[in-house]
Amino acid sequence: MPISGQHIVKSFDEEIARLGNDIVRMGGQVEAQIDLAMRAIASRDSELASDVVAGDTKVDGLEDMIEEQVVRLFALRAPVANDLRLAFASLRIAAELERMGDLAKNAAKRAIILNQSAPVRPVHVLPRMAAVVQRMLKDVLDAFVERDAGRARAVWQNDAEVDELHNSLFRELLTYMMEDPRHITACTHMLFIAKNIERMGDHTTNIAEQVIFVVEGTKPDTARPKAETVLDRSGDAVLDD
Amino acid sequence: MPISGQHIVKSFDEEIARLGNDIVRMGGQVEAQIDLAMRAIASRDSELASDVVAGDTKVDGLEDMIEEQVVRLFALRAPVANDLRLAFASLRIAAELERMGDLAKNAAKRAIILNQSAPVRPVHVLPRMAAVVQRMLKDVLDAFVERDAGRARAVWQNDAEVDELHNSLFRELLTYMMEDPRHITACTHMLFIAKNIERMGDHTTNIAEQVIFVVEGTKPDTARPKAETVLDRSGDAVLDD
Repeated sequence: MPISGQHIVKSFDEEIARLGNDIVRMGGQVEAQIDLAMRAIASRDSELASDVVAGDTKVDGLEDMIEEQVVRLFALRAPVANDLRLAFASLRIAAELERMGDLAKNAAKRAIILNQSAPVRPVHVLPRMAAVVQRMLKDVLDAFVERDAGRARAVWQNDAEVDELHNSLFRELLTYMMEDPRHITACTHMLFIAKNIERMGDHTTNIAEQVIFVVEGTKPDTARPKAETVLDRSGDAVLDD
Repeated sequence: MPISGQHIVKSFDEEIARLGNDIVRMGGQVEAQIDLAMRAIASRDSELASDVVAGDTKVDGLEDMIEEQVVRLFALRAPVANDLRLAFASLRIAAELERMGDLAKNAAKRAIILNQSAPVRPVHVLPRMAAVVQRMLKDVLDAFVERDAGRARAVWQNDAEVDELHNSLFRELLTYMMEDPRHITACTHMLFIAKNIERMGDHTTNIAEQVIFVVEGTKPDTARPKAETVLDRSGDAVLDD
């Protein structure tokens, strides 16, 4: 095994590049899972939903691989400064992506339950909400690749759109349940799917914070824009859970 | 500054000990937040609920402190083997505790909303579910301090009890909503509080996995016991979101 300084430096850069590639690959996998989960909901396709549930192990496997790479990097390379920051950020981004994958899996599970009742009208809002999140995820992965803090910051701001869609869907579903109690079970599952998508948005903004941290060395210190001050009895649900 | 090997070793052990203490302190803070949130729900005390919401910054501050300690440990000490594992596990445990704190905060926010409607009967189940989680959290922190993998494994098994309570509360709330649509808004918020508590249980089992990882060097490889196979139209909600 060659041990010249030249080689070690090159190999270290290669490892860092590989880590970046794997994160982008994992992000792509999560994007695909969200997309398929929403198709399963829109087309009431339980078989497709089952595929999404099964596909989550692929996402989990990618997280494990990234974790192992980072642990090896720490053990063998003792990275400092920028590389240390990138290694930490990679761990955190992989953890956020893993949770997004779980949420896509859960949306798919609830799609299977939804298919056991009659269709409920406001179901089309779910893929619309998810489309915003999918675009945010794509943007934040691009921002990561290009080390573009400005683009990451834009994603971070976008989350308010997801929150607004969630808020209005929440109200619509409540009205729908009150109009006809036979819809209560289906609507309850939709409330949880909507919450899943809203949380995917939150995880995307967490990734955006990590990208800003990688590029600028600090996390954004202003609070994320979030319309969560309204706590009225109309049941406004813009809560960050 | 003395630079004898003796001193460096001692100081390193001190740093590791301090990290452990801070995790236990953070865990205690989260336990207190859950306890207060449940008291606020049971006694319909919005002022107490607001205190819980405000208190979450203390939990977040402890996570930041732990992260900084770990980053410094990596940068200055380049830990290996057991210490490396403990450092990684500390980061992850702190992240899990931070999310549990968020969930307690969100339960408290919803308590404030609940107090704007008439009381709903099944509300007493929430503190009962939370009591199981609080006991699990206490046990897993003890297991961490005592490096007791067996005790951590017991916590990991206990989560099924939380899932069962959640499942039966979910059904009860659905029935309640169907009986009287005026309860729909309040019950919906209770569904989300119940889900928050169920997720706290999941985070506690994640901490248990980290404790097992610290003690034994590997994570438990059997799937966590979780009654999530039932996906029937009765709306069984044991989903891991």
